Amino acid sequence: MNQVRLGIIGIGNMGTGHCKNILQGKVPEIAITAIADRSEARRAWAKENLPETAAVYEEGKDLITAGVCDAVLIAVPHYQHPELTIYALEHGLHVMCEKPAGVYTKQVREMNEAARKSDRVFGMMFNQRTNCIYRKMHELVTGGELGAIKRVNWIVTDWYRTQSYYDSGSWRATWDGEGGGVLLNQCPHNMDLLQWICGMPKKVHAFCHNGKWHDIEVEDDVTAYLEYPNGATGVFVTTTADAPGTNRFEVTLEMGKLVCENEKLTLYKLAENERTFCKTAKGGFDKPECTVTEIETDGLNEQHMGVLKAFAGRILHGTPLVAEGVEGINGLTLSNAMHLSSWLGKGIEIPFEEDLFLEELEKRRSSSRKKEGSGVVFDTEGSY
Amino acid sequence: MNQVRLGIIGIGNMGTGHCKNILQGKVPEIAITAIADRSEARRAWAKENLPETAAVYEEGKDLITAGVCDAVLIAVPHYQHPELTIYALEHGLHVMCEKPAGVYTKQVREMNEAARKSDRVFGMMFNQRTNCIYRKMHELVTGGELGAIKRVNWIVTDWYRTQSYYDSGSWRATWDGEGGGVLLNQCPHNMDLLQWICGMPKKVHAFCHNGKWHDIEVEDDVTAYLEYPNGATGVFVTTTADAPGTNRFEVTLEMGKLVCENEKLTLYKLAENERTFCKTAKGGFDKPECTVTEIETDGLNEQHMGVLKAFAGRILHGTPLVAEGVEGINGLTLSNAMHLSSWLGKGIEIPFEEDLFLEELEKRRSSSRKKEGSGVVFDTEGSY
Repeated sequence: MNQVRLGIIGIGNMGTGHCKNILQGKVPEIAITAIADRSEARRAWAKENLPETAAVYEEGKDLITAGVCDAVLIAVPHYQHPELTIYALEHGLHVMCEKPAGVYTKQVREMNEAARKSDRVFGMMFNQRTNCIYRKMHELVTGGELGAIKRVNWIVTDWYRTQSYYDSGSWRATWDGEGGGVLLNQCPHNMDLLQWICGMPKKVHAFCHNGKWHDIEVEDDVTAYLEYPNGATGVFVTTTADAPGTNRFEVTLEMGKLVCENEKLTLYKLAENERTFCKTAKGGFDKPECTVTEIETDGLNEQHMGVLKAFAGRILHGTPLVAEGVEGINGLTLSNAMHLSSWLGKGIEIPFEEDLFLEELEKRRSSSRKKEGSGVVFDTEGSY
Repeated sequence: MNQVRLGIIGIGNMGTGHCKNILQGKVPEIAITAIADRSEARRAWAKENLPETAAVYEEGKDLITAGVCDAVLIAVPHYQHPELTIYALEHGLHVMCEKPAGVYTKQVREMNEAARKSDRVFGMMFNQRTNCIYRKMHELVTGGELGAIKRVNWIVTDWYRTQSYYDSGSWRATWDGEGGGVLLNQCPHNMDLLQWICGMPKKVHAFCHNGKWHDIEVEDDVTAYLEYPNGATGVFVTTTADAPGTNRFEVTLEMGKLVCENEKLTLYKLAENERTFCKTAKGGFDKPECTVTEIETDGLNEQHMGVLKAFAGRILHGTPLVAEGVEGINGLTLSNAMHLSSWLGKGIEIPFEEDLFLEELEKRRSSSRKKEGSGVVFDTEGSY
């Protein structure tokens, strides 16, 4: 085998983007041999735009059992991610799953068990992990040279969306269709990067505001306070309504500070560990010596293509994935904890009671409002 | 009268700084005619460094009743601010009070009542209000041209202090001596600017950590979440242990965003109100047009000298103060609410129960640890 036969399940905004990239030859080790979509309009688009050899299905499960693919890319609404992933793995297909891994961790835990039992490749579409700056932050923070983390502050308010975005899909921004708002749709990348770079907090206290800026039932404005096992604290702020938004990720450590903003990574490196300095300096207002450097990276940022290339590489040559599928549960644990904290109005320890979360989610699903989607498919270029 | 005869009560770190500035002729309309300090060493310093004509007292109240001053500058530990202010006003003296206005709002409310009954000038040493950048932010945000506030984010972690700072004064960083830590000693400026520029929140949820980075009993690390009457939210983060710290104050409004960092003020101005754009734009990923400008200011930043000059100006010529004394209660209300929220582990609505706050404070005072101060007086240049 020198090319992976890929089926794409779901060709809405994201699936269509992946389709176009592959059709343009940007991932040469992958060929699209099938697509599935429940929308007649999207299937018609597929028949017009895909090679004649590509099979078109209404149901993802039919695509999976048709025997025309080695692997599937799952880009359907979030609730169906675990079910289709499990089904595909159990039918011997490799799986690349769009983010988030699912809507609630209990469901994703089952998916991870299926993946552990299977010998197939399971990857998550955490394309932001291909970004040279986040890779460098991961390397510097987890490398240990900067000492322990003391504080994290990520303001990521640049996920701007208009009302027409929310009006475009009937499942979009509903408890029943998506299981959440900005935390489930836009922030899975940030949730994943946050845990990948800084590790998992042990406690979360979040303040989510539902339909604050848009006519939607789910949250479009979130402020979360985090506590880490070593005592470090953090703040995570997001919204889809700030213009222009900010994307500033600051990590303070014992040996200095990293600031990622405007596609630059700045390192403030201390000459000595602050914890030692604090205890030994004679002057009350003394400060440790510090040098400031803009960090050079390898400049590579392959995004979705990078994730898909690595996925094909793992299948064909056993080379590393960008993100293992089973790691998807970490970011979801974070967002579930934020939702639960806000719903209950109190701080939530991690791990939290997964059954309690599900119960609270089901309450919201059962009163979820039905809406008509405009069916418009937006070009997502540069928006994820 | 063409010069104000000033008595300085308390010549520790701050009082000494004021003394030196005035002795160096930086505030020509003020002459120091008396000082008071309970420390023999500080009185000896005064006798050596002040003109022979300046009277030296042990007790502030003796200075106030001696008839040698028109005005007093109160720079003693915080608990005594209201008592001495009231005493001075009642004895016909003008008062400039160091920040914070006091330790608990109930006490400060009494001070404000005394000020309202008096015809004397009462100012607060909010020297940061003289900073051209904060003045400009105040003008732009309260001016209305940028629309309503949507979000506030102030990371002010550049109040670095070593352990030796805390060891220098027996009253420092104790519940009984100071009534708090970074919120009461370093942050009164930020609390005041926050309310001066953005108005008062209606609810505060804070996470204060006591003695997290230093051997002290009060808080040296705070993260607070704020909710404003119009629904806007905010985050305020501070500590005395981050090196190098950050001072980044971001205010997002309907018509754009202001970011104050590294002594620069940047305005991101939208071509149209985001609230209108969101509802009318056709594209799901459309964004309002935005222009970015570095805001020019008048460049003036007179700090303590500016506050003292304005104080003399008000006394001699009726010109405006930098900050009215009665406004000191606002910032203290904020920090009291943060303390109370953290003590009770829940969100606190403003106005809060002042008696409850005092009760909780007294609990902490009664078990406050006694410590010996090294008595070292640090040069505070550039540190406040």
